[in-house]
Amino acid sequence: METVSTWKAFGGVQGVYRHAAETTACTMTFAVYVPPLPAGQKAPVLWYLSGLTCTHANVMEKGEYRRAAAEHGVIIVAPDTSPRGEGVPDSPEDWTFGCGAGYYVDATEAPYAKNYRMASYIIDELPKLIAAHFPADMARQGVFGHSMGGHGALTLALKNPGTFKSCSAFAPIVQPSTATVARGAFERYLGADRAAWRAYDATSLIEDGRRFSAFLVDQGTDDEFLDTLLRPNLLKEACEKAGIALTLNLRDGYGHSYYFVSSFMAEHIGWHAARLR
Amino acid sequence: METVSTWKAFGGVQGVYRHAAETTACTMTFAVYVPPLPAGQKAPVLWYLSGLTCTHANVMEKGEYRRAAAEHGVIIVAPDTSPRGEGVPDSPEDWTFGCGAGYYVDATEAPYAKNYRMASYIIDELPKLIAAHFPADMARQGVFGHSMGGHGALTLALKNPGTFKSCSAFAPIVQPSTATVARGAFERYLGADRAAWRAYDATSLIEDGRRFSAFLVDQGTDDEFLDTLLRPNLLKEACEKAGIALTLNLRDGYGHSYYFVSSFMAEHIGWHAARLR
Repeated sequence: METVSTWKAFGGVQGVYRHAAETTACTMTFAVYVPPLPAGQKAPVLWYLSGLTCTHANVMEKGEYRRAAAEHGVIIVAPDTSPRGEGVPDSPEDWTFGCGAGYYVDATEAPYAKNYRMASYIIDELPKLIAAHFPADMARQGVFGHSMGGHGALTLALKNPGTFKSCSAFAPIVQPSTATVARGAFERYLGADRAAWRAYDATSLIEDGRRFSAFLVDQGTDDEFLDTLLRPNLLKEACEKAGIALTLNLRDGYGHSYYFVSSFMAEHIGWHAARLR
Repeated sequence: METVSTWKAFGGVQGVYRHAAETTACTMTFAVYVPPLPAGQKAPVLWYLSGLTCTHANVMEKGEYRRAAAEHGVIIVAPDTSPRGEGVPDSPEDWTFGCGAGYYVDATEAPYAKNYRMASYIIDELPKLIAAHFPADMARQGVFGHSMGGHGALTLALKNPGTFKSCSAFAPIVQPSTATVARGAFERYLGADRAAWRAYDATSLIEDGRRFSAFLVDQGTDDEFLDTLLRPNLLKEACEKAGIALTLNLRDGYGHSYYFVSSFMAEHIGWHAARLR
């Protein structure tokens, strides 16, 4: 692991790091904020998964998470949203697919299956690196994210309820398998057989019996993607049928940007911290 | 005035606007955050002046000021740092001069005197626009800034103590007339006669009899520009001699970036709010 940069912030350290990732067969960059901690003490780890077009940097610069993370003593890890670099198949003219749009799946289709393995990268490879290099208590992990990253948080939590003790999302894509922007990416990463898509779709996972303790979701009512891509009511219906506790806050007048995410960031971190204590 | 964009954030509205500015003879862009306010109520105005290379956008995206501005009910205005656009003389290969480096002076030298009039723009023209279009109580104004913008805040406050009720700075350039990076710009904007530079140098203004009620300054000890450009001790000495109250906080391990600024943003806004009530 190589340190790209570190800055002191809110009493802790905001760092950017990179490493040669085996899972995605490329160099991966990620951000870690370590709050001020007494010597020798470990902190819970909260994974933030970003949305389409983002890298680790968007939430690091615009997410306003450090104050609350420092107050609650929580480590924040922000991975990239896809593999990148020479040799990684991309689709630069299309922001909904390829680099910046990994959808937190393990692709099975050529030519994507070699690199686009973000599910395994985030569940298996990156946690080992975090455990080895940071004062992280890996028995206390939570996950949250925005938009495509909200989809990532919900699906990874539903599939790994033993790993994650808490899960929340800002404006998540709750049913990518039927959403215009997302389903094209699913077909190219996972093939034409829609049965395979269910393992990466929060509402399908719930229908298929996966459960999680509780979800917190915030959604802006002026979000331009609300009706076509996000559709939080589909998650609400699935959670109601399955008896999963969902707190769905519709936030009047808020959009899809980090001006929305940052407004409710501290509330989400507080919610996670209460469950990670 | 044209609205470029608005987003709801922390209960208020973060907007970006532009207008044809007479003072700088070009189109100027600026950001305004209006906190949530009861109908008909006006709020004090806190001017944030940015540093070298910045536009209005840097602090808007990375400054983390909205939470505290919403809590304290303060409007935040973030102007650009220089004139820009076709016909504005620039020096694109040099980040210390030209666009992004207006130094909040009124240039007197050709070819800069036509556009580089940021002092008058911020003191005379932009306040009229703010008063006309926003719920701003112009009898209660404060000013703060970062680096070159800290220099701007200190000098504008010292020259306009009737306009500004409060002034603070993050890592300000306190004596640009003798600082390597800054003095070249002063010569090109203001000419070779150093007597003219004193009107835009905080320590010289204090020596020449200007006074202000109190300054709050935060400075990171790991700031790469500390010894060559910023040198807060020069301000401390000038304030001590003049009997100006200066709170100078040296922040151990912090650098010059927005990771430093954002860490202490809420404290500064609280400090201003207490003086603008």
